[in-house]
Amino acid sequence: MLIFLHTNATAAERAELRHALAAEGARGPLGALPIGAGDVIGVDAAAISELAKNRIAHLPAVNHIIPIKTAYKLAHIAANPAGTRVKVGNVVFGSRGMPPVIAGPCSVENEEQIIEAAKAAKTSGAVMLRGGAFKPRTSPYTFQGLGPQGLRMLARAREITGLPVVTEVMEPGMVDAVAAFADMLQIGARNMQNYSLLIAAGHSGKPILLKRGPSSTLDEWLSAAEYILAAGNPNVVLCERGLRGFDNHTRNIFDVTAIPALHSLTHLPIVADPSHGTGKRSFVAPMALASAAAGADGLILEMHPRPDEAMSDADQTISPETLRDIVQKIHAMHIALGRPTEDEISDAATLPIAQEPLSYVFPE
Amino acid sequence: MLIFLHTNATAAERAELRHALAAEGARGPLGALPIGAGDVIGVDAAAISELAKNRIAHLPAVNHIIPIKTAYKLAHIAANPAGTRVKVGNVVFGSRGMPPVIAGPCSVENEEQIIEAAKAAKTSGAVMLRGGAFKPRTSPYTFQGLGPQGLRMLARAREITGLPVVTEVMEPGMVDAVAAFADMLQIGARNMQNYSLLIAAGHSGKPILLKRGPSSTLDEWLSAAEYILAAGNPNVVLCERGLRGFDNHTRNIFDVTAIPALHSLTHLPIVADPSHGTGKRSFVAPMALASAAAGADGLILEMHPRPDEAMSDADQTISPETLRDIVQKIHAMHIALGRPTEDEISDAATLPIAQEPLSYVFPE
Amino acid sequence: MLIFLHTNATAAERAELRHALAAEGARGPLGALPIGAGDVIGVDAAAISELAKNRIAHLPAVNHIIPIKTAYKLAHIAANPAGTRVKVGNVVFGSRGMPPVIAGPCSVENEEQIIEAAKAAKTSGAVMLRGGAFKPRTSPYTFQGLGPQGLRMLARAREITGLPVVTEVMEPGMVDAVAAFADMLQIGARNMQNYSLLIAAGHSGKPILLKRGPSSTLDEWLSAAEYILAAGNPNVVLCERGLRGFDNHTRNIFDVTAIPALHSLTHLPIVADPSHGTGKRSFVAPMALASAAAGADGLILEMHPRPDEAMSDADQTISPETLRDIVQKIHAMHIALGRPTEDEISDAATLPIAQEPLSYVFPE
Amino acid sequence: MLIFLHTNATAAERAELRHALAAEGARGPLGALPIGAGDVIGVDAAAISELAKNRIAHLPAVNHIIPIKTAYKLAHIAANPAGTRVKVGNVVFGSRGMPPVIAGPCSVENEEQIIEAAKAAKTSGAVMLRGGAFKPRTSPYTFQGLGPQGLRMLARAREITGLPVVTEVMEPGMVDAVAAFADMLQIGARNMQNYSLLIAAGHSGKPILLKRGPSSTLDEWLSAAEYILAAGNPNVVLCERGLRGFDNHTRNIFDVTAIPALHSLTHLPIVADPSHGTGKRSFVAPMALASAAAGADGLILEMHPRPDEAMSDADQTISPETLRDIVQKIHAMHIALGRPTEDEISDAATLPIAQEPLSYVFPE
Repeated sequence: MLIFLHTNATAAERAELRHALAAEGARGPLGALPIGAGDVIGVDAAAISELAKNRIAHLPAVNHIIPIKTAYKLAHIAANPAGTRVKVGNVVFGSRGMPPVIAGPCSVENEEQIIEAAKAAKTSGAVMLRGGAFKPRTSPYTFQGLGPQGLRMLARAREITGLPVVTEVMEPGMVDAVAAFADMLQIGARNMQNYSLLIAAGHSGKPILLKRGPSSTLDEWLSAAEYILAAGNPNVVLCERGLRGFDNHTRNIFDVTAIPALHSLTHLPIVADPSHGTGKRSFVAPMALASAAAGADGLILEMHPRPDEAMSDADQTISPETLRDIVQKIHAMHIALGRPTEDEISDAATLPIAQEPLSYVFPE
Repeated sequence: MLIFLHTNATAAERAELRHALAAEGARGPLGALPIGAGDVIGVDAAAISELAKNRIAHLPAVNHIIPIKTAYKLAHIAANPAGTRVKVGNVVFGSRGMPPVIAGPCSVENEEQIIEAAKAAKTSGAVMLRGGAFKPRTSPYTFQGLGPQGLRMLARAREITGLPVVTEVMEPGMVDAVAAFADMLQIGARNMQNYSLLIAAGHSGKPILLKRGPSSTLDEWLSAAEYILAAGNPNVVLCERGLRGFDNHTRNIFDVTAIPALHSLTHLPIVADPSHGTGKRSFVAPMALASAAAGADGLILEMHPRPDEAMSDADQTISPETLRDIVQKIHAMHIALGRPTEDEISDAATLPIAQEPLSYVFPE
Repeated sequence: MLIFLHTNATAAERAELRHALAAEGARGPLGALPIGAGDVIGVDAAAISELAKNRIAHLPAVNHIIPIKTAYKLAHIAANPAGTRVKVGNVVFGSRGMPPVIAGPCSVENEEQIIEAAKAAKTSGAVMLRGGAFKPRTSPYTFQGLGPQGLRMLARAREITGLPVVTEVMEPGMVDAVAAFADMLQIGARNMQNYSLLIAAGHSGKPILLKRGPSSTLDEWLSAAEYILAAGNPNVVLCERGLRGFDNHTRNIFDVTAIPALHSLTHLPIVADPSHGTGKRSFVAPMALASAAAGADGLILEMHPRPDEAMSDADQTISPETLRDIVQKIHAMHIALGRPTEDEISDAATLPIAQEPLSYVFPE
Repeated sequence: MLIFLHTNATAAERAELRHALAAEGARGPLGALPIGAGDVIGVDAAAISELAKNRIAHLPAVNHIIPIKTAYKLAHIAANPAGTRVKVGNVVFGSRGMPPVIAGPCSVENEEQIIEAAKAAKTSGAVMLRGGAFKPRTSPYTFQGLGPQGLRMLARAREITGLPVVTEVMEPGMVDAVAAFADMLQIGARNMQNYSLLIAAGHSGKPILLKRGPSSTLDEWLSAAEYILAAGNPNVVLCERGLRGFDNHTRNIFDVTAIPALHSLTHLPIVADPSHGTGKRSFVAPMALASAAAGADGLILEMHPRPDEAMSDADQTISPETLRDIVQKIHAMHIALGRPTEDEISDAATLPIAQEPLSYVFPE
């Protein structure tokens, strides 16, 4: 169930509520997440009696309660039916306005390359920069990224272009180091159910781009997001990037329907990654348009100044010219479909992380 | 390999060519398909020597030869790089103009229902009517369609509205009976590799809507189309309708990327079926837009005057109002993307079936 | 629901029952199948009131009723909890004794080949011969089988070796022709939901080997079997042959767990096909043993006197020596597991087809 | 390529080799793994010229070189064609003798439960204890394990029964803590491509049980194993536990064919987990037998003294009685198949971790 708190609930009233929940056997994190109209607590109510629920509903801190049967609670659309906006620098995901486009190379290769790529991304209409410093690679013998050096180069590219930066983090112990440089942390498909990493990402308070695992159900994906939310971080953006498939004409099966399906299940914004979704350069543009038409709240595209020279994922990397064409077409389509333009969208702010630290620790 | 014939090749020259191919051990149908610039013959050249190929290339009937390594030949894009247009009544698939929308109920239920549905489809902007008379149903205990009665009702709805009709045929022995009433024959997903049915559909000469099997690769699908083409029928339209998936929020995984992927592999038009692709009414509109944005040459949508009362597939059936909204948005999007409007498209004609009957028989 | 008839129910009492069912709106075939302890009728009871069910339960023809909620009824284990034995010549599937092994080449290539193969199969311990005369091939340009000639060659091989023959039939119009030569009809994976073919196979009365479609659920598969059963033919054997997969080290994902899963759902015997299931010669022996250990009621193996020369499926075809080794090991394993040997199994007879013709026709 | 070192290669000669490789641009870890007949180095030779390879082949440290094109090198069967034996306490995986059975509850619930389970496992024929202290759970609101307390309880159960213990570790920072209590570390399916965790597991030197990701190819799985091997730890056992499926009668698709397929690709032992593979208690026994028949080098089974009371995975948990029956049948089957009994297997020893530390660090 979801417990919505009164906006003026005092610290003592909140503590009273948490104690009451713990006494009833509620399991999991019991801190309040500042999302939607006020602070919300997610609780697995399976073990709590109707009587106890009634008692809890009448505690002073509680505004109202909504029963939720899914495994995820805070990620459920009922927690914030108006939709959550996640702000990264001056970029807003979930505004329902013109969808922001993130672009950049698969890997940061050297300072010249990432700066050139960032400039090309900006000129072509992208509003945010992507680039891998730590690369999860199937084989230990392939290029694993430039690591900390790459982070510094990304920061330099941001300094020059003003574009906020998203980059991947691969282990809990590196979250702080990456968060020191990046504006948004990406959790990759291979790590979607790396729960230690999700919790660390939650504690960081940084906006998180959570990619879908290659054979993950929507419920599993939203439950993974719940780990981040439940750790106190409301700034989660989901990213569809394709499912394990059986046809060698594409790298993955790009599940575009996940976009409207998620919009019916969750308040979190959904970004589409047609680069990994298709794995082929010539399919990126049509599938970027398809994603936008289906209602994506943003796009993330692999772009390189000279795609054929990219050190990784060259097959699916587009040129700045293709990027510009995609951005222009998405804008034209957006207007033709009568969707709101950016001017009509009111200001959004990065959501604060939970006031009470929502730790998730094992009993000693 | 593909053998392109001179347009003025005589019957004797054509016969000479066929004999030469047979003598070299070429297997399969060796008739010429009137597709693209002239007649074309598809041949599996694996067993033919380079010397023999050279000899064949110099026969009087032969204009030029293009080597093709895929299992399908006539369906390969090289057979007609300009793209094939399939005409059904006055509806054209593959024109690259405004994509035609087919709409109608899952099943023909009675005469009033199908006539009402046809009128609603027309008013809402659809240009063709769908409706099942013979229904392939998972269980023998569920409604199997009205059969021949349903065909007559479809013909009556066409008479009243002028909309051409597509309906499913399920066995070779019924092809003539269904072709007598319908303007286009649908071969369903379950029958995609029902080769006897494909060959019979080929011999019918009617335009064919060939749905993709639920776990079929693109190559398998194009090879299934090849059976129809090789039987002499160039009027094939492919229909993506979703893959077997693992998530219960959608009925199938709707493979939108198949649209641009097929456009890179084949000259045949591709229609999208977001009704079966998603299985949920509220996902049909966004995925219809996504399909059109990805370049679909048409859409087929389950629509019922009162969706909740539909005898089959009610969950995925939209209302006439939703249909109208989809058609309008697709048109607006088409223009915004700078794609050609119908006026710019030159006339298309239904392609003739092959002059020489392309039979596919077993030696007695 | 399943309606079990009294063994001595008269024709008039049976007719009374059928009329009562039809009057209550029961849909589908309403003939009685001679399976299990007596004749059984399968009915979709969703539309029938509790009152009407009670009335039907007290009709003179009715012994007792068991409610069944699955889409399939006659295939449900409740229809014959002791398990159905399907007899083909003197071979019995479902006896729970030593599992019979079917072996032979993918395709009948010529008379010498099939006779040599049949002799090798017999010598190596197989008790039944397989071989394709009509071959469903992905591409129209590949060898499509010898057709009717192949059937005659199979009959000749049976005459010489005494081994009963199973071969594939691909269309309803060919069922009688193939049934005239074969002892058991195979319906291939591509045709699992070719309902016209299933019904024709049902009317033939011949034992049917029904392969699983490459992405079929167990419920869909049993519902396909239900079409055959509901058409009056109780002699159905299921055959697991692998699911569409994503790994190129095997041709399919061989779903061995389907064997115990089906044993919990249905009374029909289950045969395993590790040749198609794995697609690789060296995996056939271990997976044949695995299938037998999991409880398979038989095996079907592609074997060729000279595997590397096989015209089709050479990669997955084993030698007579490997076949002999497999049969010996399966026998040794069977005894070691304390399973009953053939001597302990009482006589089985081919089940009669339904006395009342169970037609499945559309209303005119 | 694989570089096999002379057994008496000196430290200086080894250093010379590593420098030569680095100078040629060889990427990745270049330490020698003590596996097979002697120490082996895995190198991605794509960037190394034939001339350079020849030069390297003649360095004093080098015995011989085998070219390997797969993404994994040290995991390739060519690195140790005789097969690697992994020893955990006195249990040996990969001996080709009687396959060891690991059993125990999904979760450690309390000290009494785990001790009772360990005793029941031992009495029933299991030789190793499993039990989760840190549980990766889809939802943050479900029981997450007892954590460090659970580890101490496992150690107590080992002390009493003598059974070695395997338990899961979920993050790099916890590897040392878990390794202090456990005899073997499990890396779960969700973490198969958690590369930081794989490298930490490699550095630990402990035997590792590496589960397959739910949609992982065999090549991806072996490449994940390669991360552990390349970090210096040769003691890796693979564990098949089922693939993401689409049928609700089983939890996963249990890929038994992976067992013989892996035996053809790698020298590492393969253990089967029919509990997670099937997800249903009644399918565990037949699929345990199937796995053993297919050649599994061991089994891991969820067993609880009172299965219905298990706090997690109760549906797939067997009783001690079922465990005993499985062990007895596997032994009987093993002998019937003529496979070697334990007596015939020579002594195995835990392989040492690499002498030179094989670190995998990013350049600063």
